[in-house]
Amino acid sequence: MLIEPGKLLTSINSPNDLKKLKQDQLVALTQELRQFIVDNVSVYGGHFGASLGVVELTVALHYVFDTPVDQLVWDVGHQAYGHKILTGRKENFHTNRLYGGISGFPKRKESIYDTFGVGHSSTSISAALGMAQASSYLKHTDKQHIAVIGDGAMTAGLAFEAMNHAGVSNCNLLIILNDNCMSIDPNVGALKNYLTDITTSKTYNKVKDELWHALGKLSKFGSSARDVVSKVENGIKSVLLKQSNLFEALNLRYFGPVDGHDVDHLVHVLKDLQSIPGPKILHCITVKGKGFPEAEKNQTKWHAPGKFDKVTGEIHKKVFDAPQPPKYQQVFGHTIVELAQQNERIMGITPAMPSGSSLNIMMEAMPDRAIDVGIAEQHAVTYSAGLATQGIIPFCNIYSTFMQRAYDQVIHDVCIQDLPVNFCLDRAGFAGADGPTHHGAYDLAYMRCLPNMIVSAPMNESELRNLLYTAQLPRKGNAFTIRYPRGQGVMPEWRTPMKEIPIGKGRMILDGEDLAILTIGHVGNYAVEACRELQEQHLYPAHFDMRFVKPLDEELLHQIFQKFPKVLTIEDGCLVGGFGSAIIEFMADHGYRSSIKRLGIPDLVVEHGQQIELHRESGFDPEAIAKSAMVLMQDHKAESFS
Amino acid sequence: MLIEPGKLLTSINSPNDLKKLKQDQLVALTQELRQFIVDNVSVYGGHFGASLGVVELTVALHYVFDTPVDQLVWDVGHQAYGHKILTGRKENFHTNRLYGGISGFPKRKESIYDTFGVGHSSTSISAALGMAQASSYLKHTDKQHIAVIGDGAMTAGLAFEAMNHAGVSNCNLLIILNDNCMSIDPNVGALKNYLTDITTSKTYNKVKDELWHALGKLSKFGSSARDVVSKVENGIKSVLLKQSNLFEALNLRYFGPVDGHDVDHLVHVLKDLQSIPGPKILHCITVKGKGFPEAEKNQTKWHAPGKFDKVTGEIHKKVFDAPQPPKYQQVFGHTIVELAQQNERIMGITPAMPSGSSLNIMMEAMPDRAIDVGIAEQHAVTYSAGLATQGIIPFCNIYSTFMQRAYDQVIHDVCIQDLPVNFCLDRAGFAGADGPTHHGAYDLAYMRCLPNMIVSAPMNESELRNLLYTAQLPRKGNAFTIRYPRGQGVMPEWRTPMKEIPIGKGRMILDGEDLAILTIGHVGNYAVEACRELQEQHLYPAHFDMRFVKPLDEELLHQIFQKFPKVLTIEDGCLVGGFGSAIIEFMADHGYRSSIKRLGIPDLVVEHGQQIELHRESGFDPEAIAKSAMVLMQDHKAESFS
Repeated sequence: MLIEPGKLLTSINSPNDLKKLKQDQLVALTQELRQFIVDNVSVYGGHFGASLGVVELTVALHYVFDTPVDQLVWDVGHQAYGHKILTGRKENFHTNRLYGGISGFPKRKESIYDTFGVGHSSTSISAALGMAQASSYLKHTDKQHIAVIGDGAMTAGLAFEAMNHAGVSNCNLLIILNDNCMSIDPNVGALKNYLTDITTSKTYNKVKDELWHALGKLSKFGSSARDVVSKVENGIKSVLLKQSNLFEALNLRYFGPVDGHDVDHLVHVLKDLQSIPGPKILHCITVKGKGFPEAEKNQTKWHAPGKFDKVTGEIHKKVFDAPQPPKYQQVFGHTIVELAQQNERIMGITPAMPSGSSLNIMMEAMPDRAIDVGIAEQHAVTYSAGLATQGIIPFCNIYSTFMQRAYDQVIHDVCIQDLPVNFCLDRAGFAGADGPTHHGAYDLAYMRCLPNMIVSAPMNESELRNLLYTAQLPRKGNAFTIRYPRGQGVMPEWRTPMKEIPIGKGRMILDGEDLAILTIGHVGNYAVEACRELQEQHLYPAHFDMRFVKPLDEELLHQIFQKFPKVLTIEDGCLVGGFGSAIIEFMADHGYRSSIKRLGIPDLVVEHGQQIELHRESGFDPEAIAKSAMVLMQDHKAESFS
Repeated sequence: MLIEPGKLLTSINSPNDLKKLKQDQLVALTQELRQFIVDNVSVYGGHFGASLGVVELTVALHYVFDTPVDQLVWDVGHQAYGHKILTGRKENFHTNRLYGGISGFPKRKESIYDTFGVGHSSTSISAALGMAQASSYLKHTDKQHIAVIGDGAMTAGLAFEAMNHAGVSNCNLLIILNDNCMSIDPNVGALKNYLTDITTSKTYNKVKDELWHALGKLSKFGSSARDVVSKVENGIKSVLLKQSNLFEALNLRYFGPVDGHDVDHLVHVLKDLQSIPGPKILHCITVKGKGFPEAEKNQTKWHAPGKFDKVTGEIHKKVFDAPQPPKYQQVFGHTIVELAQQNERIMGITPAMPSGSSLNIMMEAMPDRAIDVGIAEQHAVTYSAGLATQGIIPFCNIYSTFMQRAYDQVIHDVCIQDLPVNFCLDRAGFAGADGPTHHGAYDLAYMRCLPNMIVSAPMNESELRNLLYTAQLPRKGNAFTIRYPRGQGVMPEWRTPMKEIPIGKGRMILDGEDLAILTIGHVGNYAVEACRELQEQHLYPAHFDMRFVKPLDEELLHQIFQKFPKVLTIEDGCLVGGFGSAIIEFMADHGYRSSIKRLGIPDLVVEHGQQIELHRESGFDPEAIAKSAMVLMQDHKAESFS
């Protein structure tokens, strides 16, 4: 289905074309751009509310600034659809987030207008400041550097670190604070309240103006009054003007707040700011989902709604004849509540992903025991460590890819202290359409090298429940990682009774001969399929679901290596240093000499696509597993090579 | 040498003893405590200036609060000597930082008064907030939770994340901002200037008071003036009171600044604050090194001066007959300047470690090209990525242990984008006396699993210079990690001519038979010693310095595995997933079946001590290497086991 852009938009293939428009045509263009986004996302899916919220800002930025010479960095980047459409990707925008298509986020390899690859939040100020510093050093004094960052992303420490540095630089840096009070879920924290205050308590600037005005009036009471007034003014200046604003306290000139949907005014303001050197911040108020009433009303639901009817606003849901397996997320969300009802020591922590992780179920059921700390992964982990010191059993749920942001906190605050904190790593393995910035590819490798760390992955819903159950049983120390993928499991009847899994114990799924297939996590189901296929060809490998990458089930592994001359390991994680690597370490440490092949995520940046497409590309979908097994089993030289 | 504490201090074995003192005895106690610290550190070494700066605060805190029921968290912890001395560790304080002795940082396993293990900066607010949240949930409503954090640590994002969360909590949290304008080096960034402003521009509270006073005077000009005044007052209240202070903007009640060396006043203030519920911050002004004039004057030098004459203030330096090898740090510091003089694209970045990393040499020589971004590792990396997008060649120097704090930035902003950023990982391997929080144990494992990443380690000074030289040559993509240990190399004549090392090329140090010893980095020198010893016993292993963990020198490895039935790998890094693991992966992937043994850091928390003591404990000092080699070489069963 071809989506036709509006008349003005049709003519725009780059910001140069945009600049040819008269300023009074911009409103019409924003309408067309918004419509084009609605038309596309309703049919092809993708992120929605964020891009609608910055349509005017996007048009104004490319209208005023000299992109791509001027460097425009979009924080997170799921709001950059308008940017992509205006910068030469209109024609293939329908391939957005599809395998082989354009990325859902800005990406340097995709376009010269994408100055910095994004996906994770809060990187834009640091990146733009680095660019600005380089320009300053290279004497490109007119070059502008703009970071567009949301109020949600502003809560992450990285943004603060960058502002603290920016405030003492003299670089051409413009920070645009896109303030819509939202992350994916409503933004939380003191900063949000603060931003709301300066926005709503009349405007900050207005109050300042009124103050000066009122003080001016007082002067008419004569010279002694004038002296007092002057003293008051100086006093106010010294504290109010210099320190009255959080951003000005960091020496960033603060402008705003301005209406982020008034494209005309935005163009004026941005032109003014262009001529003001040094670091500065423009506070823009926007509405997530602007222009699509349902999306404005329920912003979390419409963050990335899937396909929908753009007229009725009805979100299309697949209809199935039979009960479907739940998502792992849902199993986590319901099970943690079940467990917390039994065990009053349990608390749940999420850094800004209540709906994504399904911790929102617990937040609703027991609000004092499930806490959204905002986009603040580092804090989420150290805060959990603090909870654990007081005997609380924290379940800190963080997407695998975002756990990278709290790596030191895991090491320094949890593992070295040997605190029993539980980490639920959601969206582990290939994340799918979100692509490489969101793949949870490295967690098995970067977690298993830490002392006092248990690393596990459930093969299905029942196993996830049992691991969660096990993780809340009393234990002396040890962090406990449970990683599971985005999306559906395999058990429509998932609400199984829970039981303890001995830590470090794997299980045999299928006995067999010649070849042992060792899997970790959900991909074990692929191995089940592969074994079924192999059996049809009269090949009978054994299959073991190891459950734990650490500690390994050494007893089981001794049995395996004593019996099987050939071993195949499968993981939805990086091959370098991952699960298979752990098995090889065991093998080498104990002098076993089986032939071993490892399947998993290769050592390169795997792009976006459906998970199964990426598994196929990487050679560990069921078919590829069967093939690898077959090659191993038929390779009679295997035992004698080297 | 036994250090005698003063009379009052002698009687204090716990905070309970302290509480028995009359308040007017506290000044005398602080003098004794300060003297005891001076006496000890001058003889035994350790951190110095930081603990001297908080003597009064330490005494006041334990005097007022009900420790250990009340939870006191010291940020970083190198300022906690006074705390340790007052909480039962006076008698064995002389073992501070020695192998088997007490830790230089608070540590939960050491004392019930050490509520949270620290070492890295900026964790205290998160940890204390977690504790406070737990107390609130567990209905321990009187329990107090205090985080003592420096202004340097306040620049790291984690502290901001925690404050943002604290501001919307109702927990009993007291943040004490220990403001001395210093990290190890002078603190940098906008926040520092801001804190200086509110401290020096008369005090903030005083200005506020004067304002109200002046406005009060105006009212005498009659009722119409009163109306205007009232309007002005309301205006000021709405912006000034609510938002006038960075901390109040985050909804933390701000108190201070107060003189952090007035123990009497501190006791009064802390008692007052005890009864104010909710999150609050007390701004204390202190002087690093207080009471020891030399330390007050040169605070960086006296951060951890080594042993010194406490009377003359002369720092003892070892005197050697022959020229000594330089520290790897110095080689980096001088070489980066040499290279930058030749290559104008080079810039240097450090997160608050100019003197520790020796980047201060470049900062002095070319101030516009060497940048201290403050304690802000995440920002340092993303900022470097931003620089790289503009064609700058950044050398981002971060201690290995602190690189853990920027792991996502390495993955998300550098590797996924394939940007040619250079990382110099200082203090890799065992850090020594600083202990487990500071060991750079995991870097080889957590770096080598990333795509588009080169991982290398020099065996000596000349190799470091060549790697630095190689890293600044033009290349298309790939991050380039060079990791090296704390301390001396082996080449007194280190200023060797530089030459390119082909990326991924190892080298043979010694040819031999039967056993190949494969080393990475400085521990290669241990292998050289071991080989010498073995030769005396007529054993002739070969030795290869692999130089690169990634990419591996596959050509060389094929030769090695084809020739040697036995292989020994040695690394000053974690065994799980590290260098040896990479070698085993190669071996397994190519079907080689040599007997292999890996030496390195075991999978547990190794405590503090001299580096060589820890190498010995972990079984990879020269003697242990020789022994392992001998066992392998004499093990005739090795080839047939399994």
